[in-house]
Amino acid sequence: MESYQLKNGTKVFQYGLPIETKAVIAPKRKMKLKCDLDVKFQKDGTTISIELLSEDRIYGLGENLGGINKRGRIYESYCTDTPSHIEDREKLYSAHNFFIVSGKVVRGYFIDFPGRITYDMGYYNQKDINIKIYGQNFYIYILEGEDEKEVSSKFLEIIGKSYVPPKWGFGYFQSRWGYRNKEEVKKVYKTFKENDIPIEGIYLDLDYMDNFKDFTISQERFSGFKEFVEDLKKEGIYLIPIIDAGVKVENGYDIYEEGMKGDYFCKDKEGKPYEGVVWPGKVHFPDFMKKETQSWFGDKYQKLTDCGIEGFWNDMNEPAIFYEQEALEKAVEYAQKKLKNKNLDVFSYFKLKDNFTSLANRDSYYKNFYHEIDGKKVCNEKVHNLYGYFMTKSTYEALRKILKGKRFLLISRSSSIGMHRYGGIWTGDNSSWWFHLEQNMKMLPSLNMCGFFYIGADTGGFGGNCNGELLTRWLQLSIFTPLLRNHSAMGCNNQEPYAFTKKVLKNTRNLIKARYSLIPYIYSEYMKSVNHYHLMFQPLSFEFKDVLAKEIEDQILLGDQVMIAPVCIPNYKGRYVYFPEEMLEISFMHPKKMIGIRKKGIHYINYRLEDFKFFIRKNAMIPYVKSCKNLKKLDQKNLKILAYVDNEAIYNLYDDDGISYDFIKGKRFSTRIKIIKKENNYEIKVHNTNPSIKNIEFKIIDSENHITEKDISFINKNQ
Amino acid sequence: MESYQLKNGTKVFQYGLPIETKAVIAPKRKMKLKCDLDVKFQKDGTTISIELLSEDRIYGLGENLGGINKRGRIYESYCTDTPSHIEDREKLYSAHNFFIVSGKVVRGYFIDFPGRITYDMGYYNQKDINIKIYGQNFYIYILEGEDEKEVSSKFLEIIGKSYVPPKWGFGYFQSRWGYRNKEEVKKVYKTFKENDIPIEGIYLDLDYMDNFKDFTISQERFSGFKEFVEDLKKEGIYLIPIIDAGVKVENGYDIYEEGMKGDYFCKDKEGKPYEGVVWPGKVHFPDFMKKETQSWFGDKYQKLTDCGIEGFWNDMNEPAIFYEQEALEKAVEYAQKKLKNKNLDVFSYFKLKDNFTSLANRDSYYKNFYHEIDGKKVCNEKVHNLYGYFMTKSTYEALRKILKGKRFLLISRSSSIGMHRYGGIWTGDNSSWWFHLEQNMKMLPSLNMCGFFYIGADTGGFGGNCNGELLTRWLQLSIFTPLLRNHSAMGCNNQEPYAFTKKVLKNTRNLIKARYSLIPYIYSEYMKSVNHYHLMFQPLSFEFKDVLAKEIEDQILLGDQVMIAPVCIPNYKGRYVYFPEEMLEISFMHPKKMIGIRKKGIHYINYRLEDFKFFIRKNAMIPYVKSCKNLKKLDQKNLKILAYVDNEAIYNLYDDDGISYDFIKGKRFSTRIKIIKKENNYEIKVHNTNPSIKNIEFKIIDSENHITEKDISFINKNQ
Repeated sequence: MESYQLKNGTKVFQYGLPIETKAVIAPKRKMKLKCDLDVKFQKDGTTISIELLSEDRIYGLGENLGGINKRGRIYESYCTDTPSHIEDREKLYSAHNFFIVSGKVVRGYFIDFPGRITYDMGYYNQKDINIKIYGQNFYIYILEGEDEKEVSSKFLEIIGKSYVPPKWGFGYFQSRWGYRNKEEVKKVYKTFKENDIPIEGIYLDLDYMDNFKDFTISQERFSGFKEFVEDLKKEGIYLIPIIDAGVKVENGYDIYEEGMKGDYFCKDKEGKPYEGVVWPGKVHFPDFMKKETQSWFGDKYQKLTDCGIEGFWNDMNEPAIFYEQEALEKAVEYAQKKLKNKNLDVFSYFKLKDNFTSLANRDSYYKNFYHEIDGKKVCNEKVHNLYGYFMTKSTYEALRKILKGKRFLLISRSSSIGMHRYGGIWTGDNSSWWFHLEQNMKMLPSLNMCGFFYIGADTGGFGGNCNGELLTRWLQLSIFTPLLRNHSAMGCNNQEPYAFTKKVLKNTRNLIKARYSLIPYIYSEYMKSVNHYHLMFQPLSFEFKDVLAKEIEDQILLGDQVMIAPVCIPNYKGRYVYFPEEMLEISFMHPKKMIGIRKKGIHYINYRLEDFKFFIRKNAMIPYVKSCKNLKKLDQKNLKILAYVDNEAIYNLYDDDGISYDFIKGKRFSTRIKIIKKENNYEIKVHNTNPSIKNIEFKIIDSENHITEKDISFINKNQ
Repeated sequence: MESYQLKNGTKVFQYGLPIETKAVIAPKRKMKLKCDLDVKFQKDGTTISIELLSEDRIYGLGENLGGINKRGRIYESYCTDTPSHIEDREKLYSAHNFFIVSGKVVRGYFIDFPGRITYDMGYYNQKDINIKIYGQNFYIYILEGEDEKEVSSKFLEIIGKSYVPPKWGFGYFQSRWGYRNKEEVKKVYKTFKENDIPIEGIYLDLDYMDNFKDFTISQERFSGFKEFVEDLKKEGIYLIPIIDAGVKVENGYDIYEEGMKGDYFCKDKEGKPYEGVVWPGKVHFPDFMKKETQSWFGDKYQKLTDCGIEGFWNDMNEPAIFYEQEALEKAVEYAQKKLKNKNLDVFSYFKLKDNFTSLANRDSYYKNFYHEIDGKKVCNEKVHNLYGYFMTKSTYEALRKILKGKRFLLISRSSSIGMHRYGGIWTGDNSSWWFHLEQNMKMLPSLNMCGFFYIGADTGGFGGNCNGELLTRWLQLSIFTPLLRNHSAMGCNNQEPYAFTKKVLKNTRNLIKARYSLIPYIYSEYMKSVNHYHLMFQPLSFEFKDVLAKEIEDQILLGDQVMIAPVCIPNYKGRYVYFPEEMLEISFMHPKKMIGIRKKGIHYINYRLEDFKFFIRKNAMIPYVKSCKNLKKLDQKNLKILAYVDNEAIYNLYDDDGISYDFIKGKRFSTRIKIIKKENNYEIKVHNTNPSIKNIEFKIIDSENHITEKDISFINKNQ
């Protein structure tokens, strides 16, 4: 075993000869270190046990179901296309192997291993974490710190900064699998416009392609694609097409032929291109572990950027496999054989049926194909969790070249840590379930801890039938998520804001408008989190140390200023909210907005469908502006501030051009606002370098509910 | 349309010529009444719309998922074997067509119709209930009253009193599909005994049968069954075998041959016995709509009662159908045909797969078989929801004859209203999900409203893998449910109280002991509810009229004295509890038990795994006794009372012999306890007719937390 230390004190233990995932980019220095972990090598892998005390909580693990505290469940890291996110589902589309155990001490663990890992986080035995790594070559990173915040920051530091989308990526996006043609897409936009609902763009699902073939456009349904893209762009609407991992096997299809010629595909045992079946029928999977494939496939995106496209979603990149031809044939063969016996016994029948129900994403398929890594054949199983990561890295690197200095929108379904530097993720094919709304909230801090900041769930739910109440409640949460997309599946009822009653339309329109109002705050918090290695979404327990703050998981903190507490139960007209300190209740739809101070403790808060509520912390503030139709129209001239100040509050509003990477070179705007309470008045200091802000209106409340209003105008001069 | 009135004022509207389900047994008198319902007849059925105001809540619908308030969901009454109770599942095993709309006025509706009904309870349109009845012949009952309590009582009155199990039916039962033989069953009992866990009986799942054949016993695994039953009985352990609806098609099998000879089976279109496939392979379904079949099948239970059996569970009686031979053959044929095309298009593939995944319980199957009702052929589809009801009625009526005056345990999976007079129900194949624990609680009042009192869910969850925390939390609820059964499926991990850690064993043992301690209260509340047409479990809103009491759905009332509030979230060490009035917090595991008075309002209550908490209402009390190994050993000599009295409290403790039906003729014991606060002391009056009670120990608290202890001895004399 080799050991290393990173600059920020992180210890690294190397077992065997691991595959380099490049999840961590901080340089490591060899150093003799003691490892106190209970690591046991076995024939089929490695086990690690970590003792749990009764007060220990577990955080992290990114995209996984369960509580914010991950204790008391089983998890599996093996990226999978899982359509039904039921309560005891152990794995989803991504593999995020960082977690923190927090009790008397706080310690972070990152297992840098691209194959299967299972975690029993105190499920069968409440006193132990039991981890199984399906291999013997891996790194373990151990991070220590004062508290959870310090440990997560250290981890964010070593894995490198998150992907940053253009500012327009923070707008509202509509999506549906089943906008069948240009006319339907246009109609969506028009209906938004008619109904005065802000919208930034429309995602294009499989519908736009010719027979599910990557980088093709259906001439039947989407002819004149380039003009179509440009026309919508003029209206301020971006189109975001989907790209799937599998390339259709079809003679004459250029991508297929180039892939064959260039030897870009994964191979089967005999060295022939591996064949799985997905949407287009038989496909080959590009071998994204090969440099050559990366640049070949990446360059293909230019087919669409040449049409004016500036954003993509990479899908099916676990990679999902509906079936292998042989497995299907065997299932049919078994059924035929068994059917000859006219009175099947029940267990044969179960097997017969299971052969079909279990056809998708079988473990065995991932043993049947190989990547080429540095000239060596490596079975997918061994590096399974890197596929979506490396696909998206390829896209990112190509788009950086193609679009030059222009930022682009890029999300992926499958990911592992490291991919966060190249794109965001949506959390896959959820359902129109209240449970998934609640899970959407709980996943946000966990994803942040693993480096992912451009995140969001399919608002309203992908599968199942959404109704107006659920969509409204969901928006009351996802107004805060960087990626805000309403998406639904073919066959389910429509769930655009206007698909329900007038009342639902009114409420959802107001919520989306609120999103556009809050863009200065959301963008600022996003960029500051990314730049300074902070979490954007935090569990209460990261900030407050009382017993209840540790326990409560149905509220989270957004940045330093705000607590959010969505209603996740149907019919409820309010909810319990725990205030770990005094906070200001905001009713954003209400002309007076500031409802009043809530004392520390438990309160029942009225929260109706027609409302939009959150809470400003003590000595904190939020900035907002007038709403707009889309972010091209964002007008920050008149910045507004709501503040709860009893003593002194400081806020640093970050901004930049929103479209280039110049922020990396320091081209950033800052508006530093300081409010100091002075007896019956406030002293306000503003240091502003943002040319788009000309005036700031303040509304400040103190803990005795006195409201003070102030107005400060300035033209690019410091105050 | 004919109309009627019942004695208690219930209005009945008759449309067409309904099938008589005998759900309602109160006599009806013809009367010209106006119906204000919006009823529309259509080709394929009838629709009814009911306007909803924003404050209206909906209660009832018995066995269904969702909140206590049924608004904002879709439901379907069409009994189905549904293994996956996901959040948006619209139907389960039973059809309970009674609901109450409560707002400015309170109104109950009962649709007496044995076929399919769908309910949109304000889902797509929040302002309307939209009901579709798949037929044109039905009764609608309309019940009016002051409040929800009055309306539910009126409904309970007209449908007749619930089934009453023997007192031992209130003990703790262990079950598992997969106790494969006598030895394993014995081992379960022995392990309970060794670990000092009370147990009343063990359910026998399919394992005990010979090849899944009803009324047979595997000679390989359960030889000497009669001795086995008697041996365990001597130890105080009852065995409760399963009986399935379908009868195996097998020459030489007596039940099959008798059924054929007696013409007792449902028929297909051509008049031959209908063939479905379930556990035993091909089966015929007894036609329980025929009187002859009822008594023939009912009599068969004697095969098992002759072995000493005194309880049964009727299963698979929706009836569940795994597949029809023809459907399976067609699925295979389609697959073969499609496979010839070596590159299947994706939609053909989905169809191919769906042909297999959808084989179970297809709507079409229920159109393929017929019952004989009063000499007429009636398609199952038309009377679908009566199957489990009439099967269980047959069982009940036979057992009443066979067991003479002795009560028996009888539960069914499928039911509709009317069946409540003949047996209890468990709520089917749930999973080891926290969501299902929460649903277990929410279903209790709804089931009571529909007449079902002997109820319970599979504690710990049937499917999936339970862990110690979930089992403990689940028991903290199900200690209160009349039917208390821990049951799990083959292939899932074991979930007996001793299957986990020592700590789990200790906690669950204590909980089961608490159950036995509380039997006097639970039995008394059960019997009084049944006898007086009250709900045993009530939503808070039925008792308290403030805004929060209407809203809060994660706590319920048990009888008049107690509020319960289980923890349904993993890792939580407590929860918010809303107190609509001052109550006394009880920590039943704690030697001092009475923690103190909780003021009206919201409190965070610590509730650990090692605890058992509930709340006694103001001026109320609960009786309990020392725990015991099983109910034969129940010793009520020393009755204990915990009371919270600030003024005056009265409790009527009901009891009877627990085994006969003499209670119907008035052979009941009553212990009437009155506690009156007099300055710094209490006056206690007891009127006791229960010979088993010799002494009562009182522990009384007032709202200032003063505790008074008293002891009253008497030997069958009134005090």
